[in-house]
Amino acid sequence: MLNTYTSSTFIGCDASFNDASIVMVGAPFDGTTSYRPGTRFAPPQIRVDSYGLETYSPYLDLDLEDFSICDAGDIEMPFGNTPKALACIASTITSIVDADKKPFLIGGEHLVTLPVVQVLAKKYPDLHIIHFDAHTDLRDTYLDESLSHATVIRRAWDILGDGRIFQFGIRSGMKEEFEWAKTHTHLNPFDASTLKSILPKLSGKPVYLTIDLDVLDPSLFAGTGTPEPGGLMMKEFLDALMALKGLNLVGADVVELSPHYDPSGVSTAVACKVIREVALLLGTN
Amino acid sequence: MLNTYTSSTFIGCDASFNDASIVMVGAPFDGTTSYRPGTRFAPPQIRVDSYGLETYSPYLDLDLEDFSICDAGDIEMPFGNTPKALACIASTITSIVDADKKPFLIGGEHLVTLPVVQVLAKKYPDLHIIHFDAHTDLRDTYLDESLSHATVIRRAWDILGDGRIFQFGIRSGMKEEFEWAKTHTHLNPFDASTLKSILPKLSGKPVYLTIDLDVLDPSLFAGTGTPEPGGLMMKEFLDALMALKGLNLVGADVVELSPHYDPSGVSTAVACKVIREVALLLGTN
Amino acid sequence: MLNTYTSSTFIGCDASFNDASIVMVGAPFDGTTSYRPGTRFAPPQIRVDSYGLETYSPYLDLDLEDFSICDAGDIEMPFGNTPKALACIASTITSIVDADKKPFLIGGEHLVTLPVVQVLAKKYPDLHIIHFDAHTDLRDTYLDESLSHATVIRRAWDILGDGRIFQFGIRSGMKEEFEWAKTHTHLNPFDASTLKSILPKLSGKPVYLTIDLDVLDPSLFAGTGTPEPGGLMMKEFLDALMALKGLNLVGADVVELSPHYDPSGVSTAVACKVIREVALLLGTN
Amino acid sequence: MLNTYTSSTFIGCDASFNDASIVMVGAPFDGTTSYRPGTRFAPPQIRVDSYGLETYSPYLDLDLEDFSICDAGDIEMPFGNTPKALACIASTITSIVDADKKPFLIGGEHLVTLPVVQVLAKKYPDLHIIHFDAHTDLRDTYLDESLSHATVIRRAWDILGDGRIFQFGIRSGMKEEFEWAKTHTHLNPFDASTLKSILPKLSGKPVYLTIDLDVLDPSLFAGTGTPEPGGLMMKEFLDALMALKGLNLVGADVVELSPHYDPSGVSTAVACKVIREVALLLGTN
Amino acid sequence: MLNTYTSSTFIGCDASFNDASIVMVGAPFDGTTSYRPGTRFAPPQIRVDSYGLETYSPYLDLDLEDFSICDAGDIEMPFGNTPKALACIASTITSIVDADKKPFLIGGEHLVTLPVVQVLAKKYPDLHIIHFDAHTDLRDTYLDESLSHATVIRRAWDILGDGRIFQFGIRSGMKEEFEWAKTHTHLNPFDASTLKSILPKLSGKPVYLTIDLDVLDPSLFAGTGTPEPGGLMMKEFLDALMALKGLNLVGADVVELSPHYDPSGVSTAVACKVIREVALLLGTN
Amino acid sequence: MLNTYTSSTFIGCDASFNDASIVMVGAPFDGTTSYRPGTRFAPPQIRVDSYGLETYSPYLDLDLEDFSICDAGDIEMPFGNTPKALACIASTITSIVDADKKPFLIGGEHLVTLPVVQVLAKKYPDLHIIHFDAHTDLRDTYLDESLSHATVIRRAWDILGDGRIFQFGIRSGMKEEFEWAKTHTHLNPFDASTLKSILPKLSGKPVYLTIDLDVLDPSLFAGTGTPEPGGLMMKEFLDALMALKGLNLVGADVVELSPHYDPSGVSTAVACKVIREVALLLGTN
Repeated sequence: MLNTYTSSTFIGCDASFNDASIVMVGAPFDGTTSYRPGTRFAPPQIRVDSYGLETYSPYLDLDLEDFSICDAGDIEMPFGNTPKALACIASTITSIVDADKKPFLIGGEHLVTLPVVQVLAKKYPDLHIIHFDAHTDLRDTYLDESLSHATVIRRAWDILGDGRIFQFGIRSGMKEEFEWAKTHTHLNPFDASTLKSILPKLSGKPVYLTIDLDVLDPSLFAGTGTPEPGGLMMKEFLDALMALKGLNLVGADVVELSPHYDPSGVSTAVACKVIREVALLLGTN
Repeated sequence: MLNTYTSSTFIGCDASFNDASIVMVGAPFDGTTSYRPGTRFAPPQIRVDSYGLETYSPYLDLDLEDFSICDAGDIEMPFGNTPKALACIASTITSIVDADKKPFLIGGEHLVTLPVVQVLAKKYPDLHIIHFDAHTDLRDTYLDESLSHATVIRRAWDILGDGRIFQFGIRSGMKEEFEWAKTHTHLNPFDASTLKSILPKLSGKPVYLTIDLDVLDPSLFAGTGTPEPGGLMMKEFLDALMALKGLNLVGADVVELSPHYDPSGVSTAVACKVIREVALLLGTN
Repeated sequence: MLNTYTSSTFIGCDASFNDASIVMVGAPFDGTTSYRPGTRFAPPQIRVDSYGLETYSPYLDLDLEDFSICDAGDIEMPFGNTPKALACIASTITSIVDADKKPFLIGGEHLVTLPVVQVLAKKYPDLHIIHFDAHTDLRDTYLDESLSHATVIRRAWDILGDGRIFQFGIRSGMKEEFEWAKTHTHLNPFDASTLKSILPKLSGKPVYLTIDLDVLDPSLFAGTGTPEPGGLMMKEFLDALMALKGLNLVGADVVELSPHYDPSGVSTAVACKVIREVALLLGTN
Repeated sequence: MLNTYTSSTFIGCDASFNDASIVMVGAPFDGTTSYRPGTRFAPPQIRVDSYGLETYSPYLDLDLEDFSICDAGDIEMPFGNTPKALACIASTITSIVDADKKPFLIGGEHLVTLPVVQVLAKKYPDLHIIHFDAHTDLRDTYLDESLSHATVIRRAWDILGDGRIFQFGIRSGMKEEFEWAKTHTHLNPFDASTLKSILPKLSGKPVYLTIDLDVLDPSLFAGTGTPEPGGLMMKEFLDALMALKGLNLVGADVVELSPHYDPSGVSTAVACKVIREVALLLGTN
Repeated sequence: MLNTYTSSTFIGCDASFNDASIVMVGAPFDGTTSYRPGTRFAPPQIRVDSYGLETYSPYLDLDLEDFSICDAGDIEMPFGNTPKALACIASTITSIVDADKKPFLIGGEHLVTLPVVQVLAKKYPDLHIIHFDAHTDLRDTYLDESLSHATVIRRAWDILGDGRIFQFGIRSGMKEEFEWAKTHTHLNPFDASTLKSILPKLSGKPVYLTIDLDVLDPSLFAGTGTPEPGGLMMKEFLDALMALKGLNLVGADVVELSPHYDPSGVSTAVACKVIREVALLLGTN
Repeated sequence: MLNTYTSSTFIGCDASFNDASIVMVGAPFDGTTSYRPGTRFAPPQIRVDSYGLETYSPYLDLDLEDFSICDAGDIEMPFGNTPKALACIASTITSIVDADKKPFLIGGEHLVTLPVVQVLAKKYPDLHIIHFDAHTDLRDTYLDESLSHATVIRRAWDILGDGRIFQFGIRSGMKEEFEWAKTHTHLNPFDASTLKSILPKLSGKPVYLTIDLDVLDPSLFAGTGTPEPGGLMMKEFLDALMALKGLNLVGADVVELSPHYDPSGVSTAVACKVIREVALLLGTN
């Protein structure tokens, strides 16, 4: 055969599905985005730009090449039909979980998290969620719709109930959402200062990690639907991620990169680096 | 009161609803866009940038200030619910048509044309359509959906039937669409060379003008969802528009500007100039 | 009437002039900008993009909708005639102040601050100024002109004299300006570390707040005429703003956004968030 | 000395002032620009990007290196004082003309043309003007100012009178300007179709060539203050320029590039190529 | 397996190597680019953006899905070692040609054409070349190097000799190159007006088609190393391509897209459409 | 002569070579860049944009105008021949060093540092290096090449040996490089926290300062080949630079700005400010 290659996977994630312990899939869905759409373009752009990254993390002293990770491509979904799109994601995630592999979803908008939580909550009734985000995502409905990027964590709460959801970096929402959170979730506004004190509670519990990249300050991460100034800088965020070592992570997602809104390419480089660190965390935990 | 102003309308279109003979409304909807979304941002950007334009057209030797045109703002629509969004447009257009004013819709994506055609076809059973576009828009379904930017002219045909739709500039579609058009519409591929020979047939007939701005070459109009090289240049397109003088235009739309995809602002300038010319055509015909 | 809307005001600032206690006006003037012009485009872009913001501030636990704020549009000004432009601003601000409302000016370049200070100093002879900026703005003349964005705080000093002006975040200027400041203003170079110790002096005094957004680091705020690296990050700046609660703020301005220099839109998002916080501070103080 | 170089001149234009027969100077002035400013950045950007160009023109079969052209740098001018800025230009041009060299001005906005015409009209009382532009530039005043980019050709007419000004490509202005032109200038709307029939009248006459680059279609030339769709394409424009061979050109200018509005760099490449062709025309005629 | 996909090939080009009659490979090399580099990013960007295209061409009335085309990915090449990079290309092309398949190379810069010509000239001693370009590419050396994007056609002539190379659209080069071409190639400056008269000579001959996309006007194709205004518009170029139907095309390349220089994405859309048409021409001829 | 100027030097660096104690030269070389090229455009862009900077540093309380600095332009180098390009740099630096002036090189990519180190190590056998960078640059070969931006510090070590190289801010590389550094260099990962404790060791020693600007976080410095999130913010970096006061700096370089990747211009503004501070450090030490 020819001496050619196609960068069709995220760098260092070219294990076969069968060999892999972690399966990465893209969910290029942005159907409920209310401000600047375009997260549908994130998965292919992330794959292309991941080749500007090293596979080795000096933060974790681990290398992607020492793990078996399969980048399985993108989930095929119909346009403009939200329930059907979520069903497609649920079906793919079920296949991964049924094969005893950890799912790692690359968004798309934040609503793609919901079917993963649904599937994992069946397998792990005691599932907990660590949630990084600029926004509460706790509305009950948004523009009369119950399935929305702005309601996704509320929908996860419908499944998991009080005391299971831990939110960090939150700095935007309606007053009602912040009020509601006081009795239903652990909401750490503005930063992740309470993270380390929370972790003992999560020890040994099955934990799902959902990262809305807009938790990062838009100085670093401009390429997203609703940039919200005042977020975490990369070092703070990496510190938070490093603190998760040792948790029983059973799945993860990284969502809300909208690459066309960052002509410098930095936002995609950030996403790639976060994905590398999360993949390594999934591998070791 | 204060000596201030707010550029809340398209330049020269500040008549009250009651005084106006033409009512311009924005339909910031892009829910079925399959490639690069963002036409939702077109109406506000068009209003802001219209102040770089003169109100006088040397092509038509007419001035917007000599007509009574009301820019009534944008139609409020729910996100992510296509049938409901179309119903909102239909309701607004009905109010305009019932008040014996001509509707002039600013998209948004091309599907917003459908409710206008539905409303006008009730008032004018003999309605004809002149359609400028790069794409056929003649699919029966697209990704299993019958309501889509890619099916909108087929849906208009459902209402109007054979011989009523005249398509110009078409240069992209499936083979099946081009075949279907042979017996159901007048499809002029690549350019508008047959326009002038068609016009006598339309004399005196009620005509709706729908302009998908991607009919223009992307050298001039980069800010759109699916740029398709090989389109009309501005002079060719202005010639085609000038040829419509004297037709009985009963309404119009200009759709598919996605301003964030053109950092130079030229696409929005193009849209503004086309809107000025179409508004003047609606005023005189 | 039609079920439409026009986003002609900043979000949540749609009170009538008569009902309002705070009146926001735009001053789209950039006539003396010496490096990258374009702040003339800030007010309309800010209005459009403000709809990506929530009206509720979790920092202040306050909501714009609980206050009566009128966004009165932009001040009409002639081009290229600086004295006449400043007179237009002075006239508008006088109308606002005479009606016992607080003025909130959105620039434009920093020189627009001068007429507001002139008007307010008449009403409040004991006026003090809190000034956030990257630049001293203390030249006596700039390119032989005494009215310039580079001289505006010196001109304010002409009116108010020593001990009334408090400058924060300053990191660029001529050696002579830094020297001059030692005896005439309180100049805090590089950051706002001395702010809290200063505040007791201002207790009960009428205070005008002028924010040149380039006080922020250009990592966050690229869209400005003269980006100056090494500035405040958003959290530092929000902390500084929160410290102002309880001061007797009698007016404010936010200036020097040049939106075309930030294709990502983050700079405008920053400006919108700062404006929301300042409006709420004006409302409560 | 060191084996280094600085690209401080336009490519191929490095003759000394004394040796040169043509002197190119930059006039980085945009003080009266009413829409998108930034032409002040054109001269330095043109020098940098000119090194992407060849010195040989296959259109004219001539090479810049066979002529003695001095790029003398930019004229120093005060900011925000239009009369003083024009005086600086006039002084520089006078030095060039008094030394019996041809002036070639690089804008800046179109108002910079006025002092060149004033100086040349003294030396050549029979001066004629060939004017390429999208806009009439024939207002008597603009926003109450008589010195403006929008009045510059009217001011030239004040000096030269009827029958001396030949305008091509014009497609924007007020109705009054188009009317006024009927009796005072030769105005060729939309294109340059009448150019060749006009040329015999200019044979042997001293002719000044002023090119507002927005005469070109914004598909090709997005980087300008007021893009006006429907202009000349490059080949049409090059044809028009080639037709000028043999005229007695006594000076020229190329104005209205605003490079920051074209992130692709194409507009600056266009300006560089036009400047090369005009310099060669000045050299041979 | 999972219901996912990865867009790892150009749209509609997913045949296996063995099944294919045409093999497309990317050559991401830009080592000798003298002005704006970045063509190394073209092949992956073209694959991603090709999904905005239809597989059906209404120009040729043919569909990619009716042909067996293999997109084999990119050729792996060392950085910064031009001879070794060319050897890698030669080796890959040899494998394709030896398997009796037609090679279709996607650049990369224009020098990648050379090894394809070397390989094909061995198989087809009577090889002819049709060359679309803005630049002559006929220097003998460029900056003392004989292997360069600026010498590539001269190197092809070294192999093929006089009367075999037909150049169209050429509008930039040194005087010496244009002179040299008079006796050694058929050089059609500025456009492709002589193409149709040339074609009978090529009837039945093995023809290699090399398309430097900068032959197109930079209004349409900004994303390239050295934009040269005055080129072909898309319709002219499509007309020229359509004229090639019936020729015995034995291979082709499309080079010089530098996608990062076109933030609008139009240049990549143009490249994709040209590639579709060329692939179909290779398929039918 | 004419009253004109050309901004052909960095602001405030217009001394003649003979009068200067510091000589700045540009090295526009990016031949081994493996990801996003374009640092070849840095020197001219830096000169143009330096005029947005003041000559006075409030950090050092020093002014460029109080020193004699010559910006000698760019080194002429052949394209695509790495050894020859390095020889050109070496020759220029030798001339500077032989004239007892301090060399200050502006890249270009990081490999340009190597010839400066070679020249200075001859004059100062006890040369030490302070190295700011995101990347280790310690590979022995990269893609089989020993001369590469990824090997440059390893090549410097070949000359200087163990204990002479101090690396700060490093956050990307292969595991092997981090391992190797443990015994051969002082490598401070992620930040510059160990800098101050290191400085006493360097007291009185000849020190070369090499700054790869990608040591800065890409939030601030997007315009570079390989953006690596998690770097130093400007204030941290300025603090580190200020700590170098009093060292015996015998030369310096600032490399890896790729200006076309930052449309906002902030990266170039950062480079200009860093260059001013380094020039002042060279002047005082």
